[in-house]
Amino acid sequence: MTKTHSTAATAPPAIHFDSEFAAKLASLFQDLIVFNQTLGLKITEVTHDGAKAWLPMRPELIGHPTHQRLHGGVISATLDALGGLAVMAAVGARHADEPADARLARFGKLGTIDLRIDYLRPAIGPSFTAEARVIRLGSRVGTTRMEFYDAQGRLLSTGAGAYICWRRPKTEPLLRVVPTQN
Amino acid sequence: MTKTHSTAATAPPAIHFDSEFAAKLASLFQDLIVFNQTLGLKITEVTHDGAKAWLPMRPELIGHPTHQRLHGGVISATLDALGGLAVMAAVGARHADEPADARLARFGKLGTIDLRIDYLRPAIGPSFTAEARVIRLGSRVGTTRMEFYDAQGRLLSTGAGAYICWRRPKTEPLLRVVPTQN
Amino acid sequence: MTKTHSTAATAPPAIHFDSEFAAKLASLFQDLIVFNQTLGLKITEVTHDGAKAWLPMRPELIGHPTHQRLHGGVISATLDALGGLAVMAAVGARHADEPADARLARFGKLGTIDLRIDYLRPAIGPSFTAEARVIRLGSRVGTTRMEFYDAQGRLLSTGAGAYICWRRPKTEPLLRVVPTQN
Amino acid sequence: MTKTHSTAATAPPAIHFDSEFAAKLASLFQDLIVFNQTLGLKITEVTHDGAKAWLPMRPELIGHPTHQRLHGGVISATLDALGGLAVMAAVGARHADEPADARLARFGKLGTIDLRIDYLRPAIGPSFTAEARVIRLGSRVGTTRMEFYDAQGRLLSTGAGAYICWRRPKTEPLLRVVPTQN
Repeated sequence: MTKTHSTAATAPPAIHFDSEFAAKLASLFQDLIVFNQTLGLKITEVTHDGAKAWLPMRPELIGHPTHQRLHGGVISATLDALGGLAVMAAVGARHADEPADARLARFGKLGTIDLRIDYLRPAIGPSFTAEARVIRLGSRVGTTRMEFYDAQGRLLSTGAGAYICWRRPKTEPLLRVVPTQN
Repeated sequence: MTKTHSTAATAPPAIHFDSEFAAKLASLFQDLIVFNQTLGLKITEVTHDGAKAWLPMRPELIGHPTHQRLHGGVISATLDALGGLAVMAAVGARHADEPADARLARFGKLGTIDLRIDYLRPAIGPSFTAEARVIRLGSRVGTTRMEFYDAQGRLLSTGAGAYICWRRPKTEPLLRVVPTQN
Repeated sequence: MTKTHSTAATAPPAIHFDSEFAAKLASLFQDLIVFNQTLGLKITEVTHDGAKAWLPMRPELIGHPTHQRLHGGVISATLDALGGLAVMAAVGARHADEPADARLARFGKLGTIDLRIDYLRPAIGPSFTAEARVIRLGSRVGTTRMEFYDAQGRLLSTGAGAYICWRRPKTEPLLRVVPTQN
Repeated sequence: MTKTHSTAATAPPAIHFDSEFAAKLASLFQDLIVFNQTLGLKITEVTHDGAKAWLPMRPELIGHPTHQRLHGGVISATLDALGGLAVMAAVGARHADEPADARLARFGKLGTIDLRIDYLRPAIGPSFTAEARVIRLGSRVGTTRMEFYDAQGRLLSTGAGAYICWRRPKTEPLLRVVPTQN
């Protein structure tokens, strides 16, 4: 059953970006981050608190000489990148009052603090999909959960990540005067 | 101080393999795992319970469009691969009575269970080194700690991994008869 | 809205065990593991692949002197215990042909390999609930995802765990003869 | 060898605090955090970037009904608490210009972001020791590595944690005027 599947299963899913900002952000991740291109990552969805991607299998990504398995590092890199994209999407959604480019500029502040990946099943097949969702966005730290699936939708890996970000607190005034102790 | 460093800092470290098995294992990881070649990983040391690698910076590995930072996924992939190599080295060391090829065949049983990566500082520079050490090897699970350094020896990232492996218990007889409950 | 809630919110949820084995397993975790009693953990549901618990707040569990926050260690201990319980429930469900006591005896083989906890929001309130679900059960390793909620159902923490377990493979014969290399 | 050990092994190690601030901080963790008292945690060392603790075994801490093993949750709670203490110690060391009480007040800003624990060996014995060390302290996030040992000094568990903290950046002026976009 799982050996035969139409080529439709390997075609990239339809694309959905919920705003101009989301589309620009997807392009930034997919086209300007060189290693994401090395992986062949295609961003297929960006919403106010999550992101999805599609990854076709290629020989460069193989991790086991006898099996044709995807390298675990491709999975960790994909889930790390997608978690970061989800956090940026959520930061952008919280600053809908800013122009898209100002929100994109916040990407300079984004960084992964740490990452956990659980490998559940061997990653074999013509293509894969991945998802990330922000489960909490604070003013300084965003936390995500991620999943990695094969072309039949079987869960292959899960992830959790913490990201440093910079979000203006809701209560922040237009001008702050901050005395510092000394 | 850290901005100027001789090109010597970017030359690969000397290579040390503590046995024929260790050398063959290093070659397996470096030359037969395609994604490790995509990363450009060079194995520089394999001992009875650890492994080291060297990674030159290349444009394909960049993770941030404005800074020239290494992609976090390169770090997670490197530390995952190196942790697995360290576990295989330790499994091989526990089976020194077997021929090297029989020990290498145990690689078919190796798999990452899970992985944690902590990103401490931006990864910038002409090359990087990484280390993995087995902190426990059970009959079914190996646990490792890993580190990722820049060319000046600054700690950039740390990792922890659990790997499934197959090690013959010390007490295992030549022939086992195993009655199963039913 | 979240400040006022009926005392009903702090009453333990109804109990659901899907078999005699599940009920015995819940009792083992709740009544025989002394530290689970120190925590005050009440098991409220055990199914074929998951478990839920309820935890009333008590002064002994406070983690911050000025706020009345639950100690993070209470959360990690609860999620660790519940993940292990979920794995045992899943192991038991795979061995439905065995008597309940034989399945409980498999608990002797259970151990946490590793654990990740993400702390999302301060844990404040009269009681908490927690859930664990097995996302993969192999013959040697079970993997879980866990969540920790306040009395209003807000997600406070998430977790991921890997557990060593012992499950007879589906294909295992009644009697195995295992030649070992030497 | 490991079965017989003098009672000396179970006596608490000598105490070392490298400043008045460190001593007050240790007291805060040991005496004012109720759950740390429930665990029976004794802080034995606080330096500018790390902390150590001693934990006597007690029946309340048992995690396995047939073995006399420490509950994994005691280990995760201990390593979480100790990592937080190490981060506070490091934050305090960076603000040596402030009075001890002002530095202690920064504890209100401390929180665990996430935690990983690796369980290597069963925790059995009359007492245990634990250590935490800060491997990076940023202005907003501190990262630690932790270890948990038995009375003979065998490594039983390792941990890694990320903590939110608040440290005044070195370059922060006495008064900041911060225009915010709108």
